[in-house]
Amino acid sequence: MKAKLTVIKVGGKIVEEESSLQRLLDDFAAIEGYKVLVHGGGRSATKIASQLGIESQMVNGRRITDAETLKVVTMVYGGLVNKNIVAGLQARNINAVGLTGADMNVILSDKRPVKDIDYGFVGDVKQVDGERLASLIQSGIVPVMAPLTHDGKGNILNTNADTIAGETAKGFASFFDVTLIYCFEKKGVLRDEADDDSVITEISRQQFAELVEQGVIQGGMIPKLENSFQAIDAGVSQVIITSASAINGNQGTKIR
Amino acid sequence: MKAKLTVIKVGGKIVEEESSLQRLLDDFAAIEGYKVLVHGGGRSATKIASQLGIESQMVNGRRITDAETLKVVTMVYGGLVNKNIVAGLQARNINAVGLTGADMNVILSDKRPVKDIDYGFVGDVKQVDGERLASLIQSGIVPVMAPLTHDGKGNILNTNADTIAGETAKGFASFFDVTLIYCFEKKGVLRDEADDDSVITEISRQQFAELVEQGVIQGGMIPKLENSFQAIDAGVSQVIITSASAINGNQGTKIR
Repeated sequence: MKAKLTVIKVGGKIVEEESSLQRLLDDFAAIEGYKVLVHGGGRSATKIASQLGIESQMVNGRRITDAETLKVVTMVYGGLVNKNIVAGLQARNINAVGLTGADMNVILSDKRPVKDIDYGFVGDVKQVDGERLASLIQSGIVPVMAPLTHDGKGNILNTNADTIAGETAKGFASFFDVTLIYCFEKKGVLRDEADDDSVITEISRQQFAELVEQGVIQGGMIPKLENSFQAIDAGVSQVIITSASAINGNQGTKIR
Repeated sequence: MKAKLTVIKVGGKIVEEESSLQRLLDDFAAIEGYKVLVHGGGRSATKIASQLGIESQMVNGRRITDAETLKVVTMVYGGLVNKNIVAGLQARNINAVGLTGADMNVILSDKRPVKDIDYGFVGDVKQVDGERLASLIQSGIVPVMAPLTHDGKGNILNTNADTIAGETAKGFASFFDVTLIYCFEKKGVLRDEADDDSVITEISRQQFAELVEQGVIQGGMIPKLENSFQAIDAGVSQVIITSASAINGNQGTKIR
């Protein structure tokens, strides 16, 4: 039987505010078994970019990453946010290591081809070295992954944190019994956007299709759920979409 | 017989300019055997701090690191400079990993006590986990170390890169046959500051004392050489002070 591994993805808002970060780190430290934390940092990047006089341009919720913006996200995601999390986990006796995809070559990407939009230095994940990460984890280390990858040609690439989490979870599937948890502001996928307690506790692929058709599930939740089903197809045991305060509980929306 | 390990420390100027960085990475990639790169980044930190409206205050060549400055050095050293080096080495088939002292808890520091000067969030190295680093290196990984450590209580601390290099080299002494190379702008320790070719090829402790007394060696070179002799005392095989363009050669000043 494979050992359990939990991959937690937390968004920028949670890791960027001191009080919610400390609570998250407490909760993450309490998770039993092997674990990996994947973080965002978009709000801090936008703030620092603005202070440096760099305008943040978003298209479909994705950041257009020109050379100057790449420097900002490399600093903010790989440095500021990542190292604060690592130091915070070390203070809780969790032997964390902060990684971008370039570190130990764990995630190799292709620069996104220019079609209608030129996203700039944005990476689409090509290859995750699950074996390297698994051996690191088995030696007692807890990876903390920044939403940055590399192209193998010397360039860091900005990469969506949900994608990093999904692809990493898939890369672990042959080594561990993987649970992937996407944390966001709500308690789970809601049947009624206006009612925070209308969490759909479990979604099958068929239900997902129906709920999208009915307009119940829409916007950014659609790619999140598509990623989730892809992860399940690739051998991830379960995916949970829930709030950051519930990573140790049995709440949220389960995708199996 | 122990395997050879080379610890190279390069200052900010070399890693912050694209052309000198690319040449350094070529030279570093060509070094045979186990290796570690320790980098600075002070010039970039000063530049970014200034763009963010944060004034850089230096005392005796050391940066006063208040909370805002700590954010800047964490971003610049741990993110921007470190990850560019790592991606550049990956492009040269060197399987690098960027580390601060917080990552895998490799370097634990004490926040410098306030005496005459409050340096702020600056760390004095307390403990290097040479065993963890050695096992990483033996598995084929090349550590790239940023001049940041942590206090084990959740704080990142700004730490002098020469010190990181010296302490790390000492931490390796029981595992490897260690050569420590400090790179700077000159070809070595000079007998005559005005003559770039007046390199002192070898210095013993007694000669060092004499040269200091004669005023030949002065300023920032004195702590660099003191660090070097301490490293030798702690089991490092040799220390070389030379220019970045000579890390593969047999030039510079040797301390044995």
